[in-house]
Amino acid sequence: MADHDPDCVFCKIVAGELPARVIEEDERTIAFLDISPATPGHAVVIPRAHTADVTTASPEDLAAVAATGQRVARRALDQLDAIGVNLLNNCGARAWQTVFHLHLHVIPRYEDDGMRLPWIPTPGDPDAIAAVHARLTG
Amino acid sequence: MADHDPDCVFCKIVAGELPARVIEEDERTIAFLDISPATPGHAVVIPRAHTADVTTASPEDLAAVAATGQRVARRALDQLDAIGVNLLNNCGARAWQTVFHLHLHVIPRYEDDGMRLPWIPTPGDPDAIAAVHARLTG
Repeated sequence: MADHDPDCVFCKIVAGELPARVIEEDERTIAFLDISPATPGHAVVIPRAHTADVTTASPEDLAAVAATGQRVARRALDQLDAIGVNLLNNCGARAWQTVFHLHLHVIPRYEDDGMRLPWIPTPGDPDAIAAVHARLTG
Repeated sequence: MADHDPDCVFCKIVAGELPARVIEEDERTIAFLDISPATPGHAVVIPRAHTADVTTASPEDLAAVAATGQRVARRALDQLDAIGVNLLNNCGARAWQTVFHLHLHVIPRYEDDGMRLPWIPTPGDPDAIAAVHARLTG
């Protein structure tokens, strides 16, 4: 299987070589419960085909991961009585990615669940924002 | 325009009624710089059509938002010298959503950028994970 990395723990789950609590699957993706859950029902959605991260995913796999993530989010709200959901993708070791097979965290939210926003919201400096805009569009 | 909510600040950006630092756009989506950036280059990707959150998005808009998010993430790495990227969707007021028009945060990561993981990684209780699995699949 060209899209299988024998050293990748998520590829081993896809291949059935490692166990996982699977909650959703389709032709392109599977979703299973995280073994270190941020909150009850925390799942990760992955493409079956190995790809390192969100920047390397094919359009088809990216769309499929998003669609499965949407289904898992709806189920957290409907079946787990979650009061909200966060979907998070970490791209790169410096952005908290620890398994280098694209995955989307789907984290159900509950009252007093201990989750914290990753940054402290503060109005930005308009000149700094304009400068970044110029770099991206200039 | 049926997909336009006159009271929605993001619909006003789509309609050109409010300014925004747009960095990407296509038929279904636009991406613009957040005015309260977590880090330099923090952008939000939205569908042009109003929809409250990730659970209500059409398959087409969901796929389009993901695709634009991928492009914006690549540009952060390529054009802003980011060392990683986080993509985050907040679904519901209790999950930090503040504008009720679906949006995907694309947050470039840098050395010592002050971002913090929203949870403290801890191995889960296997019985608790099995119980959630049973609720979702039983």
